[in-house]
Amino acid sequence: MADPTSLPNSTHSTARPPLRVALAGLGTVGAGVIRLIESNAALIERRAGRRVVVTAVSARDRGKDRGVDLSPYAWEDDMTAMAARDDVDVVVELVGGSDGPALTLARNAIRHGKGLVTANKAMIAHHGMELAGTAEAAGIPLRFEAAVAGGIPVIKGLREGVAANAVDRLYGILNGTCNFILSTMEDTGRDFADVLAEAQAKGYAEADPSFDIEGTDAAHKLSILSSIAFGARIDFASVETMGISRLLAADIAQADALGYVIRLIATAETATGPDGVQRLFQRVQPHLVPFDNLLAHVDGATNAVVVEGNFSGRLLFQGAGAGDGPTASAVVADVIDIARGMDTGFEADRAFSIPVSGLEAMDPADSGHRRSRAYLRFIVADRPGVLAEITAAMRDAGVSIESLIQKGRAEEDGEVLVVMVTHEGPESAVAHALRLLEGSASLAAPPLVMHLLDE
Amino acid sequence: MADPTSLPNSTHSTARPPLRVALAGLGTVGAGVIRLIESNAALIERRAGRRVVVTAVSARDRGKDRGVDLSPYAWEDDMTAMAARDDVDVVVELVGGSDGPALTLARNAIRHGKGLVTANKAMIAHHGMELAGTAEAAGIPLRFEAAVAGGIPVIKGLREGVAANAVDRLYGILNGTCNFILSTMEDTGRDFADVLAEAQAKGYAEADPSFDIEGTDAAHKLSILSSIAFGARIDFASVETMGISRLLAADIAQADALGYVIRLIATAETATGPDGVQRLFQRVQPHLVPFDNLLAHVDGATNAVVVEGNFSGRLLFQGAGAGDGPTASAVVADVIDIARGMDTGFEADRAFSIPVSGLEAMDPADSGHRRSRAYLRFIVADRPGVLAEITAAMRDAGVSIESLIQKGRAEEDGEVLVVMVTHEGPESAVAHALRLLEGSASLAAPPLVMHLLDE
Repeated sequence: MADPTSLPNSTHSTARPPLRVALAGLGTVGAGVIRLIESNAALIERRAGRRVVVTAVSARDRGKDRGVDLSPYAWEDDMTAMAARDDVDVVVELVGGSDGPALTLARNAIRHGKGLVTANKAMIAHHGMELAGTAEAAGIPLRFEAAVAGGIPVIKGLREGVAANAVDRLYGILNGTCNFILSTMEDTGRDFADVLAEAQAKGYAEADPSFDIEGTDAAHKLSILSSIAFGARIDFASVETMGISRLLAADIAQADALGYVIRLIATAETATGPDGVQRLFQRVQPHLVPFDNLLAHVDGATNAVVVEGNFSGRLLFQGAGAGDGPTASAVVADVIDIARGMDTGFEADRAFSIPVSGLEAMDPADSGHRRSRAYLRFIVADRPGVLAEITAAMRDAGVSIESLIQKGRAEEDGEVLVVMVTHEGPESAVAHALRLLEGSASLAAPPLVMHLLDE
Repeated sequence: MADPTSLPNSTHSTARPPLRVALAGLGTVGAGVIRLIESNAALIERRAGRRVVVTAVSARDRGKDRGVDLSPYAWEDDMTAMAARDDVDVVVELVGGSDGPALTLARNAIRHGKGLVTANKAMIAHHGMELAGTAEAAGIPLRFEAAVAGGIPVIKGLREGVAANAVDRLYGILNGTCNFILSTMEDTGRDFADVLAEAQAKGYAEADPSFDIEGTDAAHKLSILSSIAFGARIDFASVETMGISRLLAADIAQADALGYVIRLIATAETATGPDGVQRLFQRVQPHLVPFDNLLAHVDGATNAVVVEGNFSGRLLFQGAGAGDGPTASAVVADVIDIARGMDTGFEADRAFSIPVSGLEAMDPADSGHRRSRAYLRFIVADRPGVLAEITAAMRDAGVSIESLIQKGRAEEDGEVLVVMVTHEGPESAVAHALRLLEGSASLAAPPLVMHLLDE
């Protein structure tokens, strides 16, 4: 470095003071973070170049047994007050919820000059631009590796690992609960509601599972990844989101017969329209995934993210998408990054890889222009003419049918399943066909549309 | 950051000067790096916070057409002199070879205070401790993401992504040439020599393929990953290495019949002996990989690395293991990391995650204590008593046989294949059995031993 001003000016011969962490939220992940910091303390000190110590903790219920000894740590009843403590360098927020105490704490932390590490995907999806903007202005590090895909270092992979690439597309399995339900339905032939109940009993699904099964959680995560990958401002509201609650065992069986598994896929890419404007396409939807696709082998509560860079080619990051250990691993990786570099200002500018002020406000892409293959499932009355009505609508809308299966009368109610897979064509044509069928007395339920994941 | 001395002190409101790169070695990867830096220049500038520009280039043959215009760049006939140029901040070494000009250039670069980025696994495996030690002493960044697994950010994943974890085990597919050959043998039933010839014709294998097919290249890479994962000094010499050149189409077929594919697996873990001393086990060997293992689906020239952390659980990193684009992606990711943080000294200490002075000189673990299942393949004379001789040796050595297949007379030479899979037992017992059979007139060739990859 010929320019002497750019020479590294420190070889750290003097010991650095410990990095002091306040921990808000002591659920399974919070307890995991304490266990991790305690049991891997020596190793963390070697890798971070300084000790990492918890100084203060806070949660709603002080008395609850969490399986970890909290007596070494100062307790704060008001978690938002932890940000003001003099003995804290970094606040770790594990409270959850897009607003409320989590957001107050996050804002307080930045205002008080503390580093902020969070696993809160909802908060980042809704308020990430504000938080990163104020953190950058203050030169404060903000990190959220644990907010997406649990223990998999995919945010780091996007921010840094593929930093040299224009990302062509990213897609993946971002919700472990849905993936557990889908792969269990696949293995057992059982219906959605039945498997969901089991997942809830086992603690894999929340008592109120709607954020998971309706795709909201995956959409939160996708909007964060999209922002980093494409240099766009987070736009959670524009993620086209469909969950898995309408899937039938019959859909899984039909997909299987056609050579596919069904996975809840989150996918994002940019699309440049005829007007030359680059827009952002973001979708969370159950997709048919060909047996030979990387993601077809992702079973159980595992997450996986595929990133396609213009030089790197296709990269896969896979691992546990949730759980106390993996999530704690990601939280503490962020803390170590801060411990390693906190005396520098530069990385602090880069929560989203480029400064928030440089992120583009990209309009959402119109999915109608996309060319896809679609799986359409109709539940119809078992009477003459129904098939003719459906296929006429397809013809009139210009949808080309590759295969069609009419499955014999269902046991209980005299309804029949009609499943078709289209040739590749504009998604607007399928939407048009479904509009033509809207209100038809032949349909016993709204049609279900899923797309096939391209190679 | 209550301590004001630890506050970030810069928000980088002033523009930073471009980072100036000298590029030594203009093979396919070197040309790829130039193409990448040119075509993704605007994006790199946004992400690095400054421009990244190539100022000087060097290679053996100036006249060769590389498909990129070199006229904007200064040419150096003597590549090792590039390190002394005033207009260079970082030297990118893509020459290859563990010693010779690559090593001279690397040493010169550090001596002249330049950052060093290299894709040279052989040089890092042999001289990484020296280079990192001098780079750390001088506060110079040294990076080698591209040396292992091409475009997959696995070094970053280990150094930073799983920094909070004690690594229990790491294993993976680190040589794309071998994986291409093995998966092609599997798909086509062809023999090794035949597929190798095709791979050479297609440019997937070098004219002298021995570094790839004998496992040396994978061993170089494994020794680098082990060092970072386990905090051990690189010990390439102790990697137990066996390549794929002795594999027969019949081995692939037998493995398939048993429910396995064969992959060249590099694996490392630490083992604490009865004396309480932690030792390092490193092996590169074709393994039988169960169909349902993550790595069984890794085909063609793809690489994949599995890292098992004590909190993260099992993480998989997968992607293109070679090629100009992926390797250039990794090289430039390192350059961007340096561009982002070059004015800081701390990360420069961390090429191997902890300072080189803190890496332990771990003795190699004795594989005899390992408990494994083994695949043993004998080529034997077709005459009475041979099977009794082999099975007696197994019995005498205490090896328990799970299954045994004797395959009918081979077409050409009256020899017979005997394949057995053992129950789990100490590897020393298998070694003992093979010693008992040494020199036996029944064996037409030395036995082939491969281990089964555990879950």
